[in-house]
Amino acid sequence: MKLATVRTAGRTEAVRVADDGTCTALGFTDVGELLAEEDWLDTAAIATAPSGAAAGTGAAAHPLDTADLAPVVPRPGKVICVGPNYRDHIIETGRELPGHPTLFAKYADALIGPRDSVELAEESEQPDWGAELAVVVGDTVRRADATRAERAIAGFTVLNDVTMRDWQYRTEQWLQGKTFENTTPLGPVLVTPDELPGGTAPALTMTCSVDDETMQKADTSDLVFGPAELVRYISTVLTLRPGDVIATGTPGGAGHTLKPPRHLTEGSRLVTEISGIGRLENSARRPAG
Amino acid sequence: MKLATVRTAGRTEAVRVADDGTCTALGFTDVGELLAEEDWLDTAAIATAPSGAAAGTGAAAHPLDTADLAPVVPRPGKVICVGPNYRDHIIETGRELPGHPTLFAKYADALIGPRDSVELAEESEQPDWGAELAVVVGDTVRRADATRAERAIAGFTVLNDVTMRDWQYRTEQWLQGKTFENTTPLGPVLVTPDELPGGTAPALTMTCSVDDETMQKADTSDLVFGPAELVRYISTVLTLRPGDVIATGTPGGAGHTLKPPRHLTEGSRLVTEISGIGRLENSARRPAG
Repeated sequence: MKLATVRTAGRTEAVRVADDGTCTALGFTDVGELLAEEDWLDTAAIATAPSGAAAGTGAAAHPLDTADLAPVVPRPGKVICVGPNYRDHIIETGRELPGHPTLFAKYADALIGPRDSVELAEESEQPDWGAELAVVVGDTVRRADATRAERAIAGFTVLNDVTMRDWQYRTEQWLQGKTFENTTPLGPVLVTPDELPGGTAPALTMTCSVDDETMQKADTSDLVFGPAELVRYISTVLTLRPGDVIATGTPGGAGHTLKPPRHLTEGSRLVTEISGIGRLENSARRPAG
Repeated sequence: MKLATVRTAGRTEAVRVADDGTCTALGFTDVGELLAEEDWLDTAAIATAPSGAAAGTGAAAHPLDTADLAPVVPRPGKVICVGPNYRDHIIETGRELPGHPTLFAKYADALIGPRDSVELAEESEQPDWGAELAVVVGDTVRRADATRAERAIAGFTVLNDVTMRDWQYRTEQWLQGKTFENTTPLGPVLVTPDELPGGTAPALTMTCSVDDETMQKADTSDLVFGPAELVRYISTVLTLRPGDVIATGTPGGAGHTLKPPRHLTEGSRLVTEISGIGRLENSARRPAG
């Protein structure tokens, strides 16, 4: 099943997306609210029409391609990001494989929809990209074992961990460069594991291009710490809840690792795609004034 | 004015606390919800009685000393913590004063009430303390100038940045050691700047003791980056909103800096106090099972 959050006349609604892109409204404000229902999968599967939406104006009238999409989970309680996690890239750069995942945070204020503009802050000269497979949590888990962790995965989506590198490296801790407002696209849809090759350890091709030039390409099965292992590990520290997002790390090819380094500038077209899930298409914009 | 969030029969309520400890219920679920009101200061000032609470069972019946206190803001949208920020301590350790504040995150899941137990995770051998002055944001601000930043400070409270040091230093990024669930007391009250010497740059004595032994003592006016400057700086990155919490950093004397290092263990009594605000009294407990 594919789920999305669609913006409609001043509000949002969660929709189920058919193979042909037709959207069926589910009666929830967004996918995060849907996932908070214990039987969300059944609820989403049996919905046939928007119960409350006015005919023709609700999300059901919009095929996915032309819909105004919000971040698939607009206000996750937690967005937890993972540092270096692509095996090939780590080995390539001469480092040892890590014994534990590196974790850092973004706040929900950083998120934008899959076709929104990436806001280039006037205070940064080094906005950079980083395609990532994102796990969306669908259950409440603490100290999950491997089986429980796997079951807590609602599905997968695409995230681009847009980062202000100059701010990231101002101090030892990355947070300030990672959480600039309106920088981080999330979507377009959540795809449940049963629809993906590899299931909860999906083997998908991920690419990131800037102005039609491919900058990153990787297979999501190359993760050192896979989705279920990340859920297990993080749930040791705290409770993961429905709608929480785990960004599983970016492969080689981010702009600051290139020689010379490259960054997003006004008008840059950033396309982030994972086969079987979908694509984020975001233009970089410096806000007026 | 002093504000607190009191637990009463299965829910919480925001209260105004008089000098003698008498609590007046304000008709809001918690202090965070109160602060989201544009005229929260007036609203809190004029309240005379709990409109909805049953007489004798609501928060008004409980003086502060015996009340069951929740974290003063139970579910802040953001808890942003600051790294080394006490001038004397930085100089003492031979480091240069930082040019920018180091920022890292905690999630709200880490917070506990001012008299709750600190949960010692079975997975960590190095739980440590760190007394901090916390700023509570009372307005919505982005790219605030100095004046606007100062005005966005609702008040101050006490936080202890309890940290699992072994997890903090597993990787370069501190998040995983900083955000263990049910570790970080916040409260007991929010005190508005007008009641504190120094106002929005309060000059208060902060102490932290473990089993009646004083481990930390500092003056909160010794901050390199003061409260208004932190609000200004952070609001460059993203929007600060009512109820967001900024923990301004801890002075010398944390357990892992001692020789030999010391940590919290089962039954440790952790007392964190800031003059003019109040005290956190938390026992460390390993959960049963």
